[in-house]
Amino acid sequence: MALAINDLNVPQRLLLGPGPSAVHPRVLRTMSTALVGYLDPEWLSLMDEEQALLRAVFQTKNTMTFPMSGTGSAGMETAFCNFVEPGDTVVIGCNGYFSERMCEMAKLYGANVKRIEKPWGGVFTPAEIETALAENKPVKILALIHAETSTGALQPLEGMAEVVHRHGALFLIDCVTSLSGVPLNIDGWGIDVAFSASQKCLGCPPGLSPFTVGDQAREALYRRKNRVPNWYLDLTMIEKYWNKERVYHHTPSTTLHYGFREGLRLVLEEGLEDRWFRHQAIAEYLWDKMATLGLKLFVPRENRLPSLSTICVPDGVDDAAVRTRLREAYNIDIAGGFGPLKGKIWRVGLMGFSSRRENVTLLSEALREILHGKI
Amino acid sequence: MALAINDLNVPQRLLLGPGPSAVHPRVLRTMSTALVGYLDPEWLSLMDEEQALLRAVFQTKNTMTFPMSGTGSAGMETAFCNFVEPGDTVVIGCNGYFSERMCEMAKLYGANVKRIEKPWGGVFTPAEIETALAENKPVKILALIHAETSTGALQPLEGMAEVVHRHGALFLIDCVTSLSGVPLNIDGWGIDVAFSASQKCLGCPPGLSPFTVGDQAREALYRRKNRVPNWYLDLTMIEKYWNKERVYHHTPSTTLHYGFREGLRLVLEEGLEDRWFRHQAIAEYLWDKMATLGLKLFVPRENRLPSLSTICVPDGVDDAAVRTRLREAYNIDIAGGFGPLKGKIWRVGLMGFSSRRENVTLLSEALREILHGKI
Repeated sequence: MALAINDLNVPQRLLLGPGPSAVHPRVLRTMSTALVGYLDPEWLSLMDEEQALLRAVFQTKNTMTFPMSGTGSAGMETAFCNFVEPGDTVVIGCNGYFSERMCEMAKLYGANVKRIEKPWGGVFTPAEIETALAENKPVKILALIHAETSTGALQPLEGMAEVVHRHGALFLIDCVTSLSGVPLNIDGWGIDVAFSASQKCLGCPPGLSPFTVGDQAREALYRRKNRVPNWYLDLTMIEKYWNKERVYHHTPSTTLHYGFREGLRLVLEEGLEDRWFRHQAIAEYLWDKMATLGLKLFVPRENRLPSLSTICVPDGVDDAAVRTRLREAYNIDIAGGFGPLKGKIWRVGLMGFSSRRENVTLLSEALREILHGKI
Repeated sequence: MALAINDLNVPQRLLLGPGPSAVHPRVLRTMSTALVGYLDPEWLSLMDEEQALLRAVFQTKNTMTFPMSGTGSAGMETAFCNFVEPGDTVVIGCNGYFSERMCEMAKLYGANVKRIEKPWGGVFTPAEIETALAENKPVKILALIHAETSTGALQPLEGMAEVVHRHGALFLIDCVTSLSGVPLNIDGWGIDVAFSASQKCLGCPPGLSPFTVGDQAREALYRRKNRVPNWYLDLTMIEKYWNKERVYHHTPSTTLHYGFREGLRLVLEEGLEDRWFRHQAIAEYLWDKMATLGLKLFVPRENRLPSLSTICVPDGVDDAAVRTRLREAYNIDIAGGFGPLKGKIWRVGLMGFSSRRENVTLLSEALREILHGKI
């Protein structure tokens, strides 16, 4: 073979973008474990443990709780392909890139999509949700993004379910960039369907999407008139592998599950409340440091997401040039904005193992050197 | 938190089932590498290398060649959701479990499915394919399983494309249990669409599905009347991330790709022809050893798959008890049959890093002890 391709030799980057975040060394190490078969009794015990850990992290008793075999977007599609039937009205709060993706997927599965809109970076009040539900009834699903990765806004969710349920709708949330980094209580807050991603605040590699479904939503799923129009993400089949039936559906990614289980263990060892506190404290340290550099945050403090901060690019500064310099001279990876925010913001993720004080100290000093032309 | 869940502590199994096969230590080690971002220039170079390696393994020049973010079944769904439009006639060779799954998926996407049937373990001749195509024209897709994991049969493919293309159909194959373990030449054999899995003969963890699409099929994809009715597996969007546009679609599983790239490197270091020869030689050694134990193989020698052998369970022997004993006393994992072959066969995979002489020696002696009641 003429192909001469070298050993893997990737640079050691400090991952402070929107994800993947830095993976904890214990998670990385765990993934070098040799594999077992997908029906091995020892593997089936690991699945039970993984579900118990995940329920604790989601703060739910939902039986139907497991990671889907795909990224957060696969989780989003799981939500819409299983719970939307053609003609269902789905109200979606549109305030950033990922809510647009929700609209696209809901339409793909035949929903009658009703958008409620805010400028990118805005969030919704229960009164606004109430109005949208009243104007469009009957509504099957009300969908919100808890933590909008494209804008850095945190959507308050407490008290929202009462409004949604009073109108007979299911409450569906994207918690991709919040789970384990921001307070979230699936059962306590009355959330019916939620999906997340392994590579954000959970500090694992990408490839799994934690998913949970409450009883009301599960009943709606089994009342569908037609089968779920997606094979790989069909919860009715996947559930039969995760519950005691153990019916083969597709081969789980053993290695990713090993790492994910370790990541969940790390979350619970730290404690959910302590972990939320850490994410908040490290983010506030970043916000303070940015202020000392004269940089403004894009989202007002009351709606600001701790796991992903959006910093306004100052007038006259070349967004991409700064990011390139950060990467090439300091091995630090942050992201730019996109859509209406392209060139206007930097996105700094402080999630999971990336959420550490020394990372903020380093990033701030590197930014100071670059912006003040000291190097 | 009340959850006390221990360190990962899995038994060291010898994986001789239908997959996952044993992962090569170099692949396991590579996956403990720290991650980089999914738009990092260094990562983009790795993607290019991965595609070059995968093309060499598939023996194709197809531009649209990359691993899908899912298991082999996600690859199968990718094939049907992208290339089937409602009402298209799809002829499927039905001779085992995975061809039934093909029928299910093709129907899900609106195909008019025409089954041609063989008993489980049988294979099709070009004349039989020709008849089916002539009787059902116009046919959009002719689909076959190259290596049927449920039966151990190898479907000959050489010369088949000429028939398929003469009838104006696309030639689609499942090479999940054959890629890099059995001779396969995508371009040389005129295959239009093919999908595989990382955890079989490629010796990597599950979670990626190598996929390739020829020019004819790609043109058919872009001539679709409606968009692909599946978001996560939509090749038109995924292609834009793998080609030079680098448009974000979903976050790739960095860690799985690190391992996969290493697995592909190992294939090409060994050389495709040498690797095929090894899989054949080790399988023949198994077949000879089984003969010395008085055990019969299920599939006639001329159609026998080297990567997965199916052994008839002798009369009066309890299939499951033998497998349990193999696992508990010897840490060896093999599989039973299912569907019409439940209780009738054992399935022994000798794939990738599991395809080694010493594994067969051990399995044979363990089986001899168990069957002859020596222990």
